[in-house]
Amino acid sequence: MLYLIGLGLGDAKDITVKGLEVVRGCSRVYLEAYTSVLTVGKEALEEFYGRKLILADREEVEQEADNILKDADISDVAFLVVGDPLGATTHSDLILRATKLGIPYRVIHNASIMNAVGCCGLQLYKFGETVSIVFWTDTWRPESFFDKVQKNRQSGLHTLCLLDIKIKEQSLENLIKGRKIYDPPRYMSVNQAAQQLLEIVQNQRIRGEDPAITEETLCVGLARVGAEDQKIAAGTLQQMCTVDLGGPLHSLIITGGSLHPLEMEMLNLFSIPENCSESQSVDGLQT
Amino acid sequence: MLYLIGLGLGDAKDITVKGLEVVRGCSRVYLEAYTSVLTVGKEALEEFYGRKLILADREEVEQEADNILKDADISDVAFLVVGDPLGATTHSDLILRATKLGIPYRVIHNASIMNAVGCCGLQLYKFGETVSIVFWTDTWRPESFFDKVQKNRQSGLHTLCLLDIKIKEQSLENLIKGRKIYDPPRYMSVNQAAQQLLEIVQNQRIRGEDPAITEETLCVGLARVGAEDQKIAAGTLQQMCTVDLGGPLHSLIITGGSLHPLEMEMLNLFSIPENCSESQSVDGLQT
Repeated sequence: MLYLIGLGLGDAKDITVKGLEVVRGCSRVYLEAYTSVLTVGKEALEEFYGRKLILADREEVEQEADNILKDADISDVAFLVVGDPLGATTHSDLILRATKLGIPYRVIHNASIMNAVGCCGLQLYKFGETVSIVFWTDTWRPESFFDKVQKNRQSGLHTLCLLDIKIKEQSLENLIKGRKIYDPPRYMSVNQAAQQLLEIVQNQRIRGEDPAITEETLCVGLARVGAEDQKIAAGTLQQMCTVDLGGPLHSLIITGGSLHPLEMEMLNLFSIPENCSESQSVDGLQT
Repeated sequence: MLYLIGLGLGDAKDITVKGLEVVRGCSRVYLEAYTSVLTVGKEALEEFYGRKLILADREEVEQEADNILKDADISDVAFLVVGDPLGATTHSDLILRATKLGIPYRVIHNASIMNAVGCCGLQLYKFGETVSIVFWTDTWRPESFFDKVQKNRQSGLHTLCLLDIKIKEQSLENLIKGRKIYDPPRYMSVNQAAQQLLEIVQNQRIRGEDPAITEETLCVGLARVGAEDQKIAAGTLQQMCTVDLGGPLHSLIITGGSLHPLEMEMLNLFSIPENCSESQSVDGLQT
């Protein structure tokens, strides 16, 4: 049996009791280590789970999945994924490959950033399509995702923006020369995402378009959701450029405009100080 | 401290290790018992958690929240919610009340139906606004949610339909007479939801409108997501009227039309037999 097990979002103890039992009973346990990270490293997980973990990078999962699936028809293999195995990153390719090999599989779900963002008080059913914001380079500055954000906003829906993660990336030079030297990991911050968004807004204005999102649009920055030191900040997109949320992982929500009073009240718990004077308790945030 | 703890979707062991530790250390533990259910009852949870649970019905949570929060400033109180505490049902009202009383709170997330539906292979970021389908009565047959389904579909987005649950409901007669006699619980099945949807489609045709959803629209029915006996069936909306998915809870997805090949391949694992002949392996399902 192939078990795809979600680890949740915080630390070693965010695995479910069922998930932990399975991990402890499997013959091999892989840790998917390229689409997300917990606040603790592999060693802390190994200690708590009482099992050695085999790191599986993108190459391994995408090109050498048969290694992962080896003997999974006659023994139990676990594939651990931060969050939920079919959440922000979907591991359906591994499931399909297992199925083709006649290997049964089972998913043990857990919290994903896709549902845990509810912690800021915005209602999950009022989210539209989710987008990803990637690190821009000098030559590659994609803006196409912004249409989806605008469309959500025009429909009164919130947009969850998943922010880029670069783990085990090679520089172009190292890639060309075939050198297995990797850049240090990079995680996009809410500040960086907001700056890129504002540049897109400026570009729209230069083209004479009327952006549905502006500097004043109400946003929510989230960091380390589900961890003890999680941080949430509600404020304008402009404020998101400078708010200090600490270390990774970050996510950004662009609100849909018309908020339910309960959503508004919840966001006020997290409003950035200068935006929330005494007289502005419930109405302090502008949508 | 007030702890809002997600229990996940299956049985007692779907709680996280962290959640279980907190439950065992709290002075009082409430179980929110009106918006969702696990496949096991209160007694099974009590046995596994090693704690007595206090059932909290809607009345208690909405009108007598102060009982739940009593002494939570000087001791730890847990409020257990099936799924995630801020998932399909948002308990932000309880958080706001606690905050006003100066009681700190913490959320321990878990899988919610909102992210666990990824188990069918449809990509979570391609879902639009979530809708709820309620039981129709002779005199109350709301159709307004259908606009959202159509809008999602027209944007190529999937729609998760959460199906009605009636727990501890009173008949009109008992309500008027003030008798605390409750009807047996009712859970909407995928069959019932599909039948109501098809009636709306028919009504649109009678009005001369051109529905974006028809009998042939590809849908996914899901039952007991996250449990050992979970069942998933992919087929047309017409097929959803008769497919047998077993006991509650059920959810229904109306696909967005243009599926990614990986989504299609995953849905084929679950396609209703007559729809999936040998020659139709990948393309057997029509979107």
